[in-house]
Amino acid sequence: MFQIFEPPAQRAAASERIKDMRQLMTRARIDAYLVPRADEYQGEYVPACADRLKWLTGFSGSAGLAIIARKAAVLFVDGRYTVQARNEVDTEIMEISKLPRPRVSEWLLENLSRGAVVGFDPRLHTVAEVERLTAALKPKDITLRLVRGNLVDRLWGRERPAPPAAPVNAHPTKLAGRSAPDKIADIQAKLKADEQDAVVLTMSDSIAWAFNIRGADIPHIPVALAFAIVPQSSKPELFLAPEKLDAGAKAHLQAFAKVSEPSALEDRLKTLVKAGKRVRLDPNTAAFWLASQLGGPKRIARGPDPCVPLKAIKNAAEIKGARAAQLRDGVAVTRFLCWLDANAGSGKVDEIEAVRQLESFRRETNQLREISFDTISGSGPNGAIVHYRVSEASNRKLRAGELFLIDSGAQYLDGTTDITRTVAIGKPTQEMRERFTLVLKGHIGIATARFPEGTRGIEIDGFARRALWQHGLDYDHGTGHGIGSYLSVHEGPQSISKAGMAPLQPGMICSNEPGYYKEGAYGIRIENLVLVSEPRAIPGGERKMLEFETLTLAPIDRRLILKSMLSADEIAWLNEYHTRVADEIGPELDAETRRWLKQATAPL
Amino acid sequence: MFQIFEPPAQRAAASERIKDMRQLMTRARIDAYLVPRADEYQGEYVPACADRLKWLTGFSGSAGLAIIARKAAVLFVDGRYTVQARNEVDTEIMEISKLPRPRVSEWLLENLSRGAVVGFDPRLHTVAEVERLTAALKPKDITLRLVRGNLVDRLWGRERPAPPAAPVNAHPTKLAGRSAPDKIADIQAKLKADEQDAVVLTMSDSIAWAFNIRGADIPHIPVALAFAIVPQSSKPELFLAPEKLDAGAKAHLQAFAKVSEPSALEDRLKTLVKAGKRVRLDPNTAAFWLASQLGGPKRIARGPDPCVPLKAIKNAAEIKGARAAQLRDGVAVTRFLCWLDANAGSGKVDEIEAVRQLESFRRETNQLREISFDTISGSGPNGAIVHYRVSEASNRKLRAGELFLIDSGAQYLDGTTDITRTVAIGKPTQEMRERFTLVLKGHIGIATARFPEGTRGIEIDGFARRALWQHGLDYDHGTGHGIGSYLSVHEGPQSISKAGMAPLQPGMICSNEPGYYKEGAYGIRIENLVLVSEPRAIPGGERKMLEFETLTLAPIDRRLILKSMLSADEIAWLNEYHTRVADEIGPELDAETRRWLKQATAPL
Repeated sequence: MFQIFEPPAQRAAASERIKDMRQLMTRARIDAYLVPRADEYQGEYVPACADRLKWLTGFSGSAGLAIIARKAAVLFVDGRYTVQARNEVDTEIMEISKLPRPRVSEWLLENLSRGAVVGFDPRLHTVAEVERLTAALKPKDITLRLVRGNLVDRLWGRERPAPPAAPVNAHPTKLAGRSAPDKIADIQAKLKADEQDAVVLTMSDSIAWAFNIRGADIPHIPVALAFAIVPQSSKPELFLAPEKLDAGAKAHLQAFAKVSEPSALEDRLKTLVKAGKRVRLDPNTAAFWLASQLGGPKRIARGPDPCVPLKAIKNAAEIKGARAAQLRDGVAVTRFLCWLDANAGSGKVDEIEAVRQLESFRRETNQLREISFDTISGSGPNGAIVHYRVSEASNRKLRAGELFLIDSGAQYLDGTTDITRTVAIGKPTQEMRERFTLVLKGHIGIATARFPEGTRGIEIDGFARRALWQHGLDYDHGTGHGIGSYLSVHEGPQSISKAGMAPLQPGMICSNEPGYYKEGAYGIRIENLVLVSEPRAIPGGERKMLEFETLTLAPIDRRLILKSMLSADEIAWLNEYHTRVADEIGPELDAETRRWLKQATAPL
Repeated sequence: MFQIFEPPAQRAAASERIKDMRQLMTRARIDAYLVPRADEYQGEYVPACADRLKWLTGFSGSAGLAIIARKAAVLFVDGRYTVQARNEVDTEIMEISKLPRPRVSEWLLENLSRGAVVGFDPRLHTVAEVERLTAALKPKDITLRLVRGNLVDRLWGRERPAPPAAPVNAHPTKLAGRSAPDKIADIQAKLKADEQDAVVLTMSDSIAWAFNIRGADIPHIPVALAFAIVPQSSKPELFLAPEKLDAGAKAHLQAFAKVSEPSALEDRLKTLVKAGKRVRLDPNTAAFWLASQLGGPKRIARGPDPCVPLKAIKNAAEIKGARAAQLRDGVAVTRFLCWLDANAGSGKVDEIEAVRQLESFRRETNQLREISFDTISGSGPNGAIVHYRVSEASNRKLRAGELFLIDSGAQYLDGTTDITRTVAIGKPTQEMRERFTLVLKGHIGIATARFPEGTRGIEIDGFARRALWQHGLDYDHGTGHGIGSYLSVHEGPQSISKAGMAPLQPGMICSNEPGYYKEGAYGIRIENLVLVSEPRAIPGGERKMLEFETLTLAPIDRRLILKSMLSADEIAWLNEYHTRVADEIGPELDAETRRWLKQATAPL
């Protein structure tokens, strides 16, 4: 199993550790110290050795920031984690604060005296973060002080896990669709256009993409933790323990790049500064430490990571891979849905068993490398928790008359998947069917949308919400995120959401996942991945339009659809989609599952 | 008549004037000089005495910028004005350049040598404009130099028109809905919250709103050209020739404000600086000159004009006024549409006569103060020119088999209107009806939309475009702009468009005007004004939603609608709207027009 179900740790005895921390703070002459849930790579996940926040406070969520002041201490978490934080953290010594209000800066302004000094580890905060906080603390003359050597690490000692040392492989050019030297040349062309001498790459998935390598240093994302420098014209240099490379990766990299020990990076950055080079760094994703090695944030050439827009647009090989991965994954999901229908009615299946079963169907493809995130398996009221992650403690049986929401994904060599289905266990209520149909209307609104070149995600997000809005309903998350090719299940720059300011370009893959959540009762989400097409002429029209091609293939629960609420066009879309599912998935199934699929995809 | 129809001036003999200008430039030691179509108030219209661009170049459009360099000269215009500019300007001495590419800065970088100096009149450019241009010219060490005393004015001499001296009246509190002292207190509360000592108001409609005064210094917008200073706690000061005030305005203003000669402003700004005051200025709308009087752009407290968000949200009296103005205007428009149906078939009505006739119906209300902009009266291919303004030269008969688009508005004491109708003259083609129906679907998409609080215009703009997009069609303008209360027909901050980043708030009035334009053939636009409602509970829903209330009342041409393309909900909206039009407008009409209206509003 890739997924584990251990319940959240019980209140850690953080009291001792925080006392020790305060002694270190006194010695360092700082009035407060920041402990974020981040490592020097600033990615979505951190390896166990970098989970300082959990070690210090007991909090095991995937995002958060603790501030230890001389007398007060606080843990900032977002809405998903308030309950979990209260369970895991000793609230007698540390208050829990829910972001976005008050902000971190507001807490500091209120709890520290004028002229106070806040210590931080420059490797664990981005340039932009440090700059924002510095500006916000000015009114009270509170300053940030860079503290070398993380204070938590000084206390952590022997029980600290070793850094990840997973092997690194070359990713076949056949699957990547473009050779690493060609990608490096693309980056170098961008540097030339922007008149920069080099770029420091810091995002692990950018590096994996640019160098056509994959690793397993962190959960769910097949990357190696590394930094890289790409100069405008000479060989790129990858900073990554050379012993992690397998033979294939070694040969692959040798041909066009230099591989150096991570410890060499500092020196290399200083050399660039001395030579007066203009070095590009993305202030929103790069650690402050990198900027300070480059002569300080004012000296860096600010610009977004040049890999991000290149990586987002999938080439023909990646698109072919995505289609193959979706078909394979669709077979596993369809088998799972058939199994669920046969077994869930008995009242014996629980959320964890569903996760295990789905993973086992994926394993039977013999091509599963990882799951792309912890499966969200929520029955009844648990389905209404948008970022629910089942544990032995929260585990719940699937019961008749309830809905079951399952959001999951796989990592295959040829592509990353992400799919959500909501299934009726027993007989659904009329309200469940109404609201499911409203969500489906939003899903179809995106799936069938046409739009001109240059259209940004924010401009079509409303198509997914309109039917819900008309009924006084909504959902509090975006409609779609970008997806990598055997990389992160979340990538930019595109986003179909209120924050989606990047144009949707041909070759981008997005999720299409409107939802509805009734707190304490049930959750609904319908998620397929879609590919942005090339602009195409519309018969009778004047301007070429972009469209989405739905990639994900698995039945949508017909028992939850109220046909009378759908327009003729919407019914046609659903029937055509189901015909495609039957035609493409059907031949891959045993006879019994195929029979089930036939009725599950029968026309409305 | 408020509207005049003189054809564009023929190529002015600009050659002499530009030669004279170059001599002044030599004496001022500058290599180029900027002549924008703007005055020191930076509004949408300028009085004749400030139309320096027209005097110098012959170009009479409402937006543009000329650059006179030592050897080259260029006129920048946007897409609406390229043809007109070519007709009006002597292209042997001045090239015409279409914005946005190349930009003004790109032209300067290409045409001037390294280290060149560009002169500008600091009253005619905003702070932001000067800063942007300064930054863009840096790579070639080209600098902007503030030139005191406008160079065009030195040449213009006796034939220059006198500055406007229209009388200024008090705007009744009963119509404004809030007294001027209360509005000043609202502005002062904002200054207090933002820790600023004073604000300089520069937008004429903000000043008219804040002081509850109206004037007639410029066409179409009932404002007086003026500046004002509102200090955080003492009396506000209005800079406006006191002799322009009528007795009512004098008494009204005396009660709460000081009125000073415009020439006193400079001194007052310097006094504020000397006293070390933090003075707020909107860099996007205030002339650079004001910032320089306040100690330079770095010393000002930057912030948007505080009146803009306050003015945009109409109070109960303004909403009542808007409804009354729309009803009155709807009667005039309905009489016009009836007249058009009776007369246009003969082939004798032309675009200018249509404008005259519509204005005369509005005059017969006995309450018309102005038209809110030059009527766009476009028959056949002229309808496809989005910003068309008919002149004796372009005037065209309305012909059977064509469409006629008329976009117009009125200024009444209780409200400003803006309405577009597209009418079939004779029998329309199937294509015209299809495309009209697609535009209507977009119009209804906005009219019936519900959305949660905080939703911005950009998030619903797509509702107006979706039906067109699905058919490979689109329109190149926004869907809706804000509208003043007996003020400017265009106001912010709201906008239903790709640029609409301000939340749509209860009390805001917007236009809803999707369109479609077939170049060389016909144009379609359907425009009503809509009011954003208070959030209201939706039966069966969970979250309150905002809605639009359509304010404009006049029939939409049923002969152009293909019923089969509309959903049941869309048909219901149209029929309900037409019932409302018949019920509210009908009783105000004579029997014959009422008979016409009855058939024009019959259910589909």
